[in-house]
Amino acid sequence: MSIRYGVIGTGAIGGFYGGKLAHSGCDVHFLFLSDFQHVQENGLRVDSVKGDFHLQQVACYSSVQEMPVCDVVLVGLKTINNHLLPELLRPIVHKDSLVILIQNGLGIEAELAHEMPDIHIAGGMAFICSNKTGPGHISHLDFGRIEMGLFTPGGTELLQQCCSDFEKAGVPVIIADNLGMARWKKLIWNIPFNGLTVVLNTTTDKIMKQNPTKDLAYEMMQEVIEAAHTCGFEIDRGIADQMITMTEGMTPYAPSMKLDFDNNRPMEIQSIYTNPVQTAQKAGYEMKKVAMLEQQLRFISER
Amino acid sequence: MSIRYGVIGTGAIGGFYGGKLAHSGCDVHFLFLSDFQHVQENGLRVDSVKGDFHLQQVACYSSVQEMPVCDVVLVGLKTINNHLLPELLRPIVHKDSLVILIQNGLGIEAELAHEMPDIHIAGGMAFICSNKTGPGHISHLDFGRIEMGLFTPGGTELLQQCCSDFEKAGVPVIIADNLGMARWKKLIWNIPFNGLTVVLNTTTDKIMKQNPTKDLAYEMMQEVIEAAHTCGFEIDRGIADQMITMTEGMTPYAPSMKLDFDNNRPMEIQSIYTNPVQTAQKAGYEMKKVAMLEQQLRFISER
Repeated sequence: MSIRYGVIGTGAIGGFYGGKLAHSGCDVHFLFLSDFQHVQENGLRVDSVKGDFHLQQVACYSSVQEMPVCDVVLVGLKTINNHLLPELLRPIVHKDSLVILIQNGLGIEAELAHEMPDIHIAGGMAFICSNKTGPGHISHLDFGRIEMGLFTPGGTELLQQCCSDFEKAGVPVIIADNLGMARWKKLIWNIPFNGLTVVLNTTTDKIMKQNPTKDLAYEMMQEVIEAAHTCGFEIDRGIADQMITMTEGMTPYAPSMKLDFDNNRPMEIQSIYTNPVQTAQKAGYEMKKVAMLEQQLRFISER
Repeated sequence: MSIRYGVIGTGAIGGFYGGKLAHSGCDVHFLFLSDFQHVQENGLRVDSVKGDFHLQQVACYSSVQEMPVCDVVLVGLKTINNHLLPELLRPIVHKDSLVILIQNGLGIEAELAHEMPDIHIAGGMAFICSNKTGPGHISHLDFGRIEMGLFTPGGTELLQQCCSDFEKAGVPVIIADNLGMARWKKLIWNIPFNGLTVVLNTTTDKIMKQNPTKDLAYEMMQEVIEAAHTCGFEIDRGIADQMITMTEGMTPYAPSMKLDFDNNRPMEIQSIYTNPVQTAQKAGYEMKKVAMLEQQLRFISER
C-alpha cells in the first residue's frame, strides 16, 4: 500500500520526520508558512547526526487549499496553534484519514477529537533533539526515535503503514499500546527540564550539575509519576532514576520551551503544564512543584 | 537608667535604628566596616519618610577592639555573616549584656546562644522598607515598626529599657511574648516575596498584578502558616489574606534579598529558607513550594 502524507507545521519536528519520509521515497506534501518561498527555490535541508540530506524538489504549499487530500497527516505545529487545526485539516483529510499529532503535552488528541469527531487520531512523541536553524533548514542534533499510539479506535492500518514507512526511512519507531501512558511517560522528562531551563535561564547540564536543582528535577519527575498513577497509568517509579542518569549523559541541551522563550515565541504552557496539572487535580492528586513551575512560567510569559 | 548601645552592622537596619536612638540622645557606638572613613568625616545621614536627619558627630569605630563595652548590642548584619558574631561581640559585651539580632529568618538566636551561652539574646523583627543608598547614607522609604522578643530567660530589663528608648526616638515598638511565633509570622511575608522577586527578576507589585503569582504567593504563605502550626505556633490562618491585601496596597518594592541579588551580594537563603524548611520537616511538615523556591535560589546563587 502506498499512502499520501501531509505535513502541517514544517519546523524542527515536521521538517525532520516528513523530510526523512520524503527522502526515502514516500509521497509527502508539506505546508509551509513563512518558509514557503525559500523552500520552493532551495528545497529542504536537514543536517543530521545520522547523515545530512537535501531535498531539492519538495511538494510544498503555502495554503492547505492547494494541497491534495492525504491519508496520513503529520502535525508538527506548536500546540499553542492547535486552535487552527480544524481549518487546516478539513481541506486535506478524507473520511478514513489518520492525523498524527507529533506534539508535546497532554489532552491535545481529546481536544482535536472533540472538534473533528469524524477522523482517526493518533499521538506521536518525538524523542529527538532538533531545531529549525533557518528557513527550510533543520538541524538534528541527537536521538530521533518516534513513538506513536492511537487515540481513536480506527486508524490501525494507516498507523502500521506509517510505522513501516518510518522504519524504511531509518527512523526508529515504536507503537504505543497505551497512548495515555506514553504521553505521561514523556512528561516525566519534559515537565522538569522545559520549565526549569526557562525560569532559571539555563541548560539541562547546569541543572544536573547542582544538587538543589538535580534534586528538584527528580522530585518533579516523581510528582509526574504519582499523577500518572492517580490517573490510572502504572508507570514504573524507577524510570525517574533512569531519566536522571540519561540526562547526566546528555549533551548540554536547551529544551524546546527554552528555545521558544529565547526566540520570543509563545511557550506551550497549556499542553505541557496546565493540562497535566488539571488532569491530575481532577483525579485527586496535586502536583505541587509542577503547579508552582506552571505559575512561574505564566508570570514569565506575560511579562 | 541610661544604657550604652552598640551597633554591629550599620547598614539599612543598624543605621536606621541605631541612628534614630543616637538622634534622640542615646549613647550609641557604631561599628563600620567599609564606611568608617566616610562617616568619621561626614557623619551618618538618614533620609526618612518620617523626617530626614543627619548625625554630624557619630561615635564610630572600625574595629570592635576600640569600642567600649555595651549594655545592649543591636546586630544589623546580614545573617550570612553570623559566623563572625562571637568574635565581633566578645570584646564589647559584659556578663549581663543583651544582644538583639535585628535580622531575617529562623534559628539565628539558637545558633548564637550555642556559641555564646553566657549572654542574653533577643530577636528583633524590623517591619521597614529601608536601603543603604551610599556610604553612611540610609534611605527609609516606608513603615518602620520593630518587634522584639527575648530568646534567653534573662535580659528583660534591658529589653524594656531599649523599648522605651525606641519609643522616645519615635520608633513604633512591640514586645513579642513569643519570639518563635513572631519569627514565623514575619516569614509569612518574607518567604514568598524575597525569593520570588529574585527568581522571577521582578518587584512585589508585578507579582501581585498577575493571578498565577498572586495565587502562588498566597499558597506559599499558607505553607508557612501550616509549618508554624506543626511547630506549635498557632498563627491565625486569616493573616495570609491580610498580608495579600497589605501587599497590594504597597509601593512597588524590591525586598532585601532582591537588592542583595541585584548588587551581587550573597543572599540570606540559609536563614530565610533552609532553616524554616528543615525546622518544619523535622516537625513533620513539608513546605513543598517553599522548598522548591529554596532549591531555585541555591541554583541562582551558585550560578
